[in-house]
Amino acid sequence: MAHVTRPIFLVSDFGLRDAYTGQVKAVIAAIAPGGRIFDLSHDVEPFAVDEGAWLLETSIETLPGDAVVLAVVDPGVGTERLEIAVFAEGRVFVGPDNGLLSGAFPESCRPPGERVSSVRVPPGVEVRELCSPLFRRPVVSNTFHGRDIFAPAAAHLAQGVDPGRLGPCLERVELLAAFRGVPVGFGELHGRVIHIDRFGNLITTIRCAELFPEFEVFIGGHRIDTRVRTFAEGPAGVPFCHADSSGYLAVAVNTGDAARTLGVSRGEPVLVRRR
Amino acid sequence: MAHVTRPIFLVSDFGLRDAYTGQVKAVIAAIAPGGRIFDLSHDVEPFAVDEGAWLLETSIETLPGDAVVLAVVDPGVGTERLEIAVFAEGRVFVGPDNGLLSGAFPESCRPPGERVSSVRVPPGVEVRELCSPLFRRPVVSNTFHGRDIFAPAAAHLAQGVDPGRLGPCLERVELLAAFRGVPVGFGELHGRVIHIDRFGNLITTIRCAELFPEFEVFIGGHRIDTRVRTFAEGPAGVPFCHADSSGYLAVAVNTGDAARTLGVSRGEPVLVRRR
Amino acid sequence: MAHVTRPIFLVSDFGLRDAYTGQVKAVIAAIAPGGRIFDLSHDVEPFAVDEGAWLLETSIETLPGDAVVLAVVDPGVGTERLEIAVFAEGRVFVGPDNGLLSGAFPESCRPPGERVSSVRVPPGVEVRELCSPLFRRPVVSNTFHGRDIFAPAAAHLAQGVDPGRLGPCLERVELLAAFRGVPVGFGELHGRVIHIDRFGNLITTIRCAELFPEFEVFIGGHRIDTRVRTFAEGPAGVPFCHADSSGYLAVAVNTGDAARTLGVSRGEPVLVRRR
Repeated sequence: MAHVTRPIFLVSDFGLRDAYTGQVKAVIAAIAPGGRIFDLSHDVEPFAVDEGAWLLETSIETLPGDAVVLAVVDPGVGTERLEIAVFAEGRVFVGPDNGLLSGAFPESCRPPGERVSSVRVPPGVEVRELCSPLFRRPVVSNTFHGRDIFAPAAAHLAQGVDPGRLGPCLERVELLAAFRGVPVGFGELHGRVIHIDRFGNLITTIRCAELFPEFEVFIGGHRIDTRVRTFAEGPAGVPFCHADSSGYLAVAVNTGDAARTLGVSRGEPVLVRRR
Repeated sequence: MAHVTRPIFLVSDFGLRDAYTGQVKAVIAAIAPGGRIFDLSHDVEPFAVDEGAWLLETSIETLPGDAVVLAVVDPGVGTERLEIAVFAEGRVFVGPDNGLLSGAFPESCRPPGERVSSVRVPPGVEVRELCSPLFRRPVVSNTFHGRDIFAPAAAHLAQGVDPGRLGPCLERVELLAAFRGVPVGFGELHGRVIHIDRFGNLITTIRCAELFPEFEVFIGGHRIDTRVRTFAEGPAGVPFCHADSSGYLAVAVNTGDAARTLGVSRGEPVLVRRR
Repeated sequence: MAHVTRPIFLVSDFGLRDAYTGQVKAVIAAIAPGGRIFDLSHDVEPFAVDEGAWLLETSIETLPGDAVVLAVVDPGVGTERLEIAVFAEGRVFVGPDNGLLSGAFPESCRPPGERVSSVRVPPGVEVRELCSPLFRRPVVSNTFHGRDIFAPAAAHLAQGVDPGRLGPCLERVELLAAFRGVPVGFGELHGRVIHIDRFGNLITTIRCAELFPEFEVFIGGHRIDTRVRTFAEGPAGVPFCHADSSGYLAVAVNTGDAARTLGVSRGEPVLVRRR
């Protein structure tokens, strides 16, 4: 029954200039005619699994409780990495088993370090391999599993197909470390720029909740010790720190572009030091 | 009842590469599960309230009569500027009280000059402040009212919530001057480039209905006196004037990019002179 | 009845930064309140009818069987070129009569050569001219038929309006040659780059099904003889050939940008030679 189809949210590095994202939507619409499809973002940096994971993780709390998420940043498409669906707290997450879906898991089970690691699936979360040919397109290409495997699976799950029909449960899953600062000394936290937004704001992996009452930030050879609550409070032309809308430490310039002003790219290391 | 949810149209400077626009849609979808959401544009130049106002104003006549518009270009987010909903001719417009929603008001009440000005709300239009915590997200960030205040308000209004529950009526509102040419001498009109479109067409604040039967245009040090009805009539490589699809004077180059050819940016002054 | 409105898929060169695409959607939503609208792509290179036709043609097999396609890449807008609707295999295609809708036609009726040509409409396909003023906007601009003519027609057709009411059947239609390699000698095929995707992959007009068992590719002064099945198999930094997700020969660089690496633009000639 079309009117109970669950809403589907997309995140990918497909961009919008090609028809890749459009074909994903077409495949979903053909299977789930009553389904509503929403874009979270398709402009994840190509192949940047960690940026995609961060964008998804920081968006999860805004999603409807019955959301189906289709996430594809998939440099290993066509290789032996698995295709999976994750069932957590009522929501479903469909995508490659490469750490992209890490945000669906409780933080307590995320691995340490900076690489993706294999982790035991925790209680309360179910992970299934998408291996049934019934829920794929008849011909599966080598390079576009978003359209041929993940989109049909997400559409069928949005329609209410029994998860058990898609494939068996997995005991292990690939997860990324939690996005947070790493203590590197007395009163020092190390992190990196995980995302640069449209306004040139540098968003880091360091959480504002981790910060010291007084601190200074070092990034790209610059020292930043101005801290404001809103953009409008920022002194003109001077870089400042603030809490981004997801609670992460960000560096911005009032009505300016911090990435350009500071000459900083995604991945740049960040050091926060207690003053 | 989901099936009577009013359609919601978005205009913002959030862009599409981050998850900002996606989070706005997620918040709406969680409150109004049957709602349909349409993008007018998210690529307003960052912080350019006047460009956002122009894009919205020139799109209003295409909107369904029951449309809810969610508009966010908000350089003053987190400061004392108000959050409002405007009720005009059956439609609802939700956004910051900074002139962005000016197109919802009759032209007769728009202020003179080039700055935003406080104006008395005219009869037949209702403006309410969005101050009830019931129609906000539980935690409101300092930098993303689009997600935390405006999206929930728009979603609840689309669902048919009584406007009186969102907050009290306001007597004054901030409005921009009407987009039109300003007479600066005998047979002369002054304006500016309000928008440069994807094709590099320069769209001005001067209305074609204001133009003299014979005229010449001065822009960026160039004089343009060729006038055509369709792009295909334009001589190759030569800039020409035409009426853009909203009735404004525009400068274009046939299958070329006028902004690049003429070296003109948004905001460039334009002078039209009777010949 | 809103719930039976057919889904509408858009492809255009309107981009997303202006409100053009948004106005098209608003016009559709006002006529077909229950309609769902999906973007295939709006980033066709401005005025590139062949690229738009290719993006549409390679997406058709993913579309629902009852899809209405609204396609607008229209350098001749406002001239004597016709506005048409094509009815083929249950789907409807609305757009200008300039070859953009070629993919809706069986390959057997596509003309030879590289230019658009007038062709007799084949049996089983119906082409109608959109000339009834009842299914246009009251005022039709000279430059934006996407909003004023094509969007209302598509919306009414999605709502189930009898095709005969839109205008008379046409006997001839403008079509592009099929996208495929042209034999230019013994064991040689000539083609061109029809699309460069977000990842910098160069997608050619040569079909993988046409290829010799052993071949080498010449493009932009480079010779490429590495052939892989998936991106991950490609040696780092070395351009390679693969089958794109629509079955066309593509040149890529593993986690790199082939267009930039090879210095190649859209339209670049490609030669494939048997080894």
